[in-house]
Amino acid sequence: MKKYAIAIHGGAGTITRSGLTPELEAAYKSALSEAIEIGDKILAEGGNALDAITESVRLMENNELFNAGKGSVFNHEGKHEMDAAIMDGKTLMAGAVSGIRNLKHPVLLAKAIMEKSAHVLLANSGAADFAKDMGLEFAPDEYFFVQHRYDQLLVAREEGQIVLDHTTPGDEKKFGTVGAVALDVHGNIAAATSTGGMTNKRWGRVGDSPIIGAGTYANNATCAISCTGHGEYFIRSVVAYDVSCLMEYKGLSLKEACDIVVMKKLVKLGGEGGLIAIDAAGNIEMPFNSEGMYRAMKRSGEDLFIGIYKD
Amino acid sequence: MKKYAIAIHGGAGTITRSGLTPELEAAYKSALSEAIEIGDKILAEGGNALDAITESVRLMENNELFNAGKGSVFNHEGKHEMDAAIMDGKTLMAGAVSGIRNLKHPVLLAKAIMEKSAHVLLANSGAADFAKDMGLEFAPDEYFFVQHRYDQLLVAREEGQIVLDHTTPGDEKKFGTVGAVALDVHGNIAAATSTGGMTNKRWGRVGDSPIIGAGTYANNATCAISCTGHGEYFIRSVVAYDVSCLMEYKGLSLKEACDIVVMKKLVKLGGEGGLIAIDAAGNIEMPFNSEGMYRAMKRSGEDLFIGIYKD
Repeated sequence: MKKYAIAIHGGAGTITRSGLTPELEAAYKSALSEAIEIGDKILAEGGNALDAITESVRLMENNELFNAGKGSVFNHEGKHEMDAAIMDGKTLMAGAVSGIRNLKHPVLLAKAIMEKSAHVLLANSGAADFAKDMGLEFAPDEYFFVQHRYDQLLVAREEGQIVLDHTTPGDEKKFGTVGAVALDVHGNIAAATSTGGMTNKRWGRVGDSPIIGAGTYANNATCAISCTGHGEYFIRSVVAYDVSCLMEYKGLSLKEACDIVVMKKLVKLGGEGGLIAIDAAGNIEMPFNSEGMYRAMKRSGEDLFIGIYKD
Repeated sequence: MKKYAIAIHGGAGTITRSGLTPELEAAYKSALSEAIEIGDKILAEGGNALDAITESVRLMENNELFNAGKGSVFNHEGKHEMDAAIMDGKTLMAGAVSGIRNLKHPVLLAKAIMEKSAHVLLANSGAADFAKDMGLEFAPDEYFFVQHRYDQLLVAREEGQIVLDHTTPGDEKKFGTVGAVALDVHGNIAAATSTGGMTNKRWGRVGDSPIIGAGTYANNATCAISCTGHGEYFIRSVVAYDVSCLMEYKGLSLKEACDIVVMKKLVKLGGEGGLIAIDAAGNIEMPFNSEGMYRAMKRSGEDLFIGIYKD
């Protein structure tokens, strides 16, 4: 039996035991478990890594707990502008979208851009036109209305801040993003990321999630990566491809490369966050330099692991 | 006297001697000469690499010959959507814009985003709002109307093609972009890129130019890079950062790294185009795997070099 494996994340940040109620903690664990199980099932049945990560991300895009799809944060104008990306480690094909509105599943659009267009990155209303051509499902603003997200906007507006996911008084700072990486039984790896970006974001700000090489990257020869964190630092550090290059050009292991990029280089620059990474041997790393990261992993023949805090 | 140096490009593609009239060739050479001289003058007077490349790119954005600023190609809707990026090799700070309309100098917006916002990448109308806040100069559609660009759109529309810069019957294929890299007497390097993208482009397509790590990258420790070519391949290959990583992690020279990325890896993937690169020692490389690339370089104490064709 060939090995397969999958890992997912639901964002990183100042996530502490004291900051989460037992009910909320249980809800996150249940959501992570549900999301990884759908991907794991696809892999167990011999499905592709691309399909597994797409379904895992799609499920998280349905869940209000995560800053992606339905649970996306509000921007400055009280709208939702979402970004997503996907990359196939076998072919180095990639698809990404930025600033898409009212689309239920940005990850499906990223996949369609990769598979059905000659392009890698489509943006804003143009990307919406392409999504309509592809027959993807849109939803009205009400679908994306989540009360606690709206409260975050009101607070952020009042404080004149652009905040990452949410910072309400007494609440934790979080970098809301979801992502998945997987290895399938055919030996191929892939990565996907989806996000609503920053609460109260203005000026069409785009983070690292839809930037191939920064927030998302996959190459069978090295690794598949999905990042979550303060996007600007992840873009400037070309985080995902940096891990890949440390493996390819310096011969480092996945673990060594992840440690250098997340725990040393990003920390030095001041970039808070983390990533999930997988290689073609099925190794998985989920490093983060913040207080916590919603994460889960499952390897063929092994137990499901779910983590939130540092330890 | 400390060394300084600058290199610029005005796009790559199927540019052949038989395809250019003597008059057009002279016009390109004159434009390249003018653009590099303004940057060279800033460097000679002890100015910063960032200011030198900004001015060189700004001048090319004024020139109808180049697919950037005024000379930007028309998109599918008969509008101009421009992308630009800049990066500072000293601080690893970066700024970029995608899908900006009616702005005379996208490179100035990229620089303002780097210096005056907390963000790296702003897009579309949101980016325009920020540009207005910064007091940058806008121009009506008429300013951007260039007859031969419009003719290219009509042909492309008729043929149902999305074309890179221009392909008119009997005309050459070109990847229209402008860019500059420089080393200043303070030992700092920087890179900037600006483009109008692809003629007849739809769906808010974004190429590699505004993607830090793909079309633009700078790091004093390795190199400063500005790319021009078939953007989708440059994004998937994370071209600019790949050159940097080959230097940093494999110890290759600028020339060796450029050769591997442009002449081997990109060629293998089918990615046509080239780049200009500089390192902190003042070495300059301008490799391209297409028929030609509009390019120029000038090092302190050396003669100006201007090139168009392969040899």
